[in-house]
Amino acid sequence: MNGADVLCDALLAHGVDVCFANPGTSEMHFVAALDRRPDMRCILGLFEGVVTGAADGYGRMLRRPAATLLHTGPGLANGLANLHNARRAGSPIVNVVGDHAAYHLQYDAPLTTDIESLASPMSRYVRRLGSADEIAEGVADAYRRAMLSPGPATLILPADSAWSAASGHALGSLGEPLRPSPSADVVRDVADAIRSSGGRFAILVGDEAALEPGSMLTGRIASRFEGAVLAEVLPSRVARGRSRVSPTSIPYPVDLALQSLKDVEVLVLVGASEPVAFFAYPGKPSRLVPDGCKVIVLASRAEDQISALEALADEIGADTDLHVARPALEPLHLTGPLTPDALGELLARQLPEGAIVCDEGITAAARFRALSHRAAAHDSLSVPGGSIGGGIPLSVGAAVACPDRKVVNLQADGSGLYTVQGLWTEARENLDVLTIVLANRAYAILQGELRNLGVNEVGRNATRMMSLSDPTIDWVQLAKGFGVEARRVDTCEAFADVLSVAMRRTGPFLVECVI
Amino acid sequence: MNGADVLCDALLAHGVDVCFANPGTSEMHFVAALDRRPDMRCILGLFEGVVTGAADGYGRMLRRPAATLLHTGPGLANGLANLHNARRAGSPIVNVVGDHAAYHLQYDAPLTTDIESLASPMSRYVRRLGSADEIAEGVADAYRRAMLSPGPATLILPADSAWSAASGHALGSLGEPLRPSPSADVVRDVADAIRSSGGRFAILVGDEAALEPGSMLTGRIASRFEGAVLAEVLPSRVARGRSRVSPTSIPYPVDLALQSLKDVEVLVLVGASEPVAFFAYPGKPSRLVPDGCKVIVLASRAEDQISALEALADEIGADTDLHVARPALEPLHLTGPLTPDALGELLARQLPEGAIVCDEGITAAARFRALSHRAAAHDSLSVPGGSIGGGIPLSVGAAVACPDRKVVNLQADGSGLYTVQGLWTEARENLDVLTIVLANRAYAILQGELRNLGVNEVGRNATRMMSLSDPTIDWVQLAKGFGVEARRVDTCEAFADVLSVAMRRTGPFLVECVI
Repeated sequence: MNGADVLCDALLAHGVDVCFANPGTSEMHFVAALDRRPDMRCILGLFEGVVTGAADGYGRMLRRPAATLLHTGPGLANGLANLHNARRAGSPIVNVVGDHAAYHLQYDAPLTTDIESLASPMSRYVRRLGSADEIAEGVADAYRRAMLSPGPATLILPADSAWSAASGHALGSLGEPLRPSPSADVVRDVADAIRSSGGRFAILVGDEAALEPGSMLTGRIASRFEGAVLAEVLPSRVARGRSRVSPTSIPYPVDLALQSLKDVEVLVLVGASEPVAFFAYPGKPSRLVPDGCKVIVLASRAEDQISALEALADEIGADTDLHVARPALEPLHLTGPLTPDALGELLARQLPEGAIVCDEGITAAARFRALSHRAAAHDSLSVPGGSIGGGIPLSVGAAVACPDRKVVNLQADGSGLYTVQGLWTEARENLDVLTIVLANRAYAILQGELRNLGVNEVGRNATRMMSLSDPTIDWVQLAKGFGVEARRVDTCEAFADVLSVAMRRTGPFLVECVI
Repeated sequence: MNGADVLCDALLAHGVDVCFANPGTSEMHFVAALDRRPDMRCILGLFEGVVTGAADGYGRMLRRPAATLLHTGPGLANGLANLHNARRAGSPIVNVVGDHAAYHLQYDAPLTTDIESLASPMSRYVRRLGSADEIAEGVADAYRRAMLSPGPATLILPADSAWSAASGHALGSLGEPLRPSPSADVVRDVADAIRSSGGRFAILVGDEAALEPGSMLTGRIASRFEGAVLAEVLPSRVARGRSRVSPTSIPYPVDLALQSLKDVEVLVLVGASEPVAFFAYPGKPSRLVPDGCKVIVLASRAEDQISALEALADEIGADTDLHVARPALEPLHLTGPLTPDALGELLARQLPEGAIVCDEGITAAARFRALSHRAAAHDSLSVPGGSIGGGIPLSVGAAVACPDRKVVNLQADGSGLYTVQGLWTEARENLDVLTIVLANRAYAILQGELRNLGVNEVGRNATRMMSLSDPTIDWVQLAKGFGVEARRVDTCEAFADVLSVAMRRTGPFLVECVI
């Protein structure tokens, strides 16, 4: 038994039985070990951003980690952008990065890099497995930290630690790691703040507070004193739909964000951080809450948010039950050219119960978001780190985690092109993902930001940096090239038709919506 | 005039008039400034790996930097793998990374990351432009370091440094920075070592020593005492062809590499580092030169290799002229299924004079490499950092740098898929790039490495991590999706036909070779 075998066994002992992988030479012993354990499901990504983004989607849905397998510093580097989203999402991942044998590093071979320096900004934990005998403990530690921090825990696996004989055996899990509950004092302080706010309070939810049963608890608390429930700008995962509390996300544009919070006197954070402007703008504030607003933490992401919400609900005497049943949207027959708004209207009506929406729709998905509280119950996943290229990989991971649920990837065209290779993994694993490409053929968000600078006459350089036309990108050909069936539509009628077919079939499918 | 204007003007004052870009919100002031200066050519990449890889190809061909424009930490992260190759190649790049306004960082907004930690491993220089007034000096410094180190120099541009009013003006270039020449003592020592080696010496060239006139100088020196001229395993750029010295690259497989150097008693390094094994293997050495071999540096990459070679040629009394004229390859008519060897034979015969070959052919391009010393004169560019996904972006950059030369991208399918988005930039800029995809539909190099571990029976996990079939990737559809004309061939006859047509046309074209 070598170190790689121990790594494999230790992952399995902790219930980590999916490995999203893009291996290289220095990981060949780990590949061989994985090959000896068919109970580990290895899923290839053609690019490392697919690997880490898929692990992120998986971790968000199951709230336990998948492993990754990345090849040295450059392989890790390719996965960092989506690891950044995972870290911001609090998504548990055991991120395994192969490296040269320890004694080989001094020779500065071509792939030698400072992996710690690369990994640290996007990880909650980084550990180099210095020998085969520390691998079992390293995995246990990484697993615990991935679950509790929560977020990506990076293990650097030198080739000689992998190939050396190991004396120890894999440690099993010591049971699910438990997050601490906030103290009774904290709960009382929050209750007092809510009571004294005269209804001018909001609860900002993230992490498990944004999911069932946390979401319903938050709704009961808010409705006791007529407060609001809000979600983060780009939520990690939030329960939405007409039978759910369906918190509204704080808007992305800074003026709208400020507007949405202007009357809040008490902001209670549960599994979320204080909201701040996504970017700084000259003359505009970084903090979004109004002056004098009291910001109070009920439970951080590293704490047990459900027990905190239960204690708070008791403390303020919230109703024990909350029945949420907004009416379904009226049937709608739309005709003519497909617009982002029409697309949102049609999708909100056809979304199946229990769907998972991976929302990287950026500007073009606003209407769907606005209607999502009246759609069928679903989970919505976004890119909390603001790093684009998350949508397709997230869909891969969510579909692997939840094979019985429809995954709908609401995908802006510009950001989808960062990790378009993920479509191939959807095809290979026959994942039930419907990708809806919002093809406005531009970085529309940047066009808006440039207008905000007062630039109305755009010249050749700016035009060419923000337009995706010339030549037009053909998503149907791209999808087919990666083995995914696809269709292009540009009218409401055609979109409605293709949607009703796509929602009934299973397996990957892509529809390019020219809007 | 704001900081962004100064940045733009300072780049232009140093002759940096191409900017490979993938901008985001925090760089909007820089975008606006670029838009006011149409003498800067902005080239969009759909993914940051295309941006940095293109800047690498450009820097290698012109030996002066292009600028990049990347969006915060995640945008930089996506570009790091190809920046790693650029650093190993010694390719000058002024790598501009936007960041939040300085005062905004404390709020830990979603895109906040430790950019210095990410940039340092892949840069030769990192500087944060702390105010608008230090931008001109920062650009001058970065330019100098990019040229002299040589390699990528990263400038971090906070949004408020970009948008603030600048009092200073852009500094012009202070003339080309000069690399120091090695001392006469060093030259004499190398000459003595060569003379005393009894012909058992080799000159390992990299950087400018591998190009004209360095390459011819090296050949004159080697032929004076019947030594060998070698190139690095994956050379940054090397002059090859039948009228050129055409150094042989040290082989990638460690056993062959050891074999290739076993008789060398003196190894002279010019613009190259001592060769080491690409990876460590149990029981095999990391250093490749035999015990007792004297390794001696004539000139490092940071030194003036041409003057050093001229001094050495004088010192040893090398012939003043060297006429290299190997015979052209015999015409060959091949039929039947296309193989990697057949592909290499046919390409070596049809390569036009002055071509630039971007070689990311990995295992499947071995035959072409072996014949390249009898092809027409060309430059060959590889991925010196071993980070795959360089081929397509390198081709973009080389074609922008040298619009009158044919660029041939010899591209393995697995590595091509990392940065396939670069095909779109080829289409948009109408670059004269012929991409030859070597579609063996596998990570063939890993299959070989696994066999080297003694694993002959491969199970489901390893198979699925090393095979690119199931489903088959259709490169013709991918290329067309990105706006590049393409054809698939699987016979020698069809490949020869398409090659003769492709070499005569201009503009981007892709041929998928099923081998």
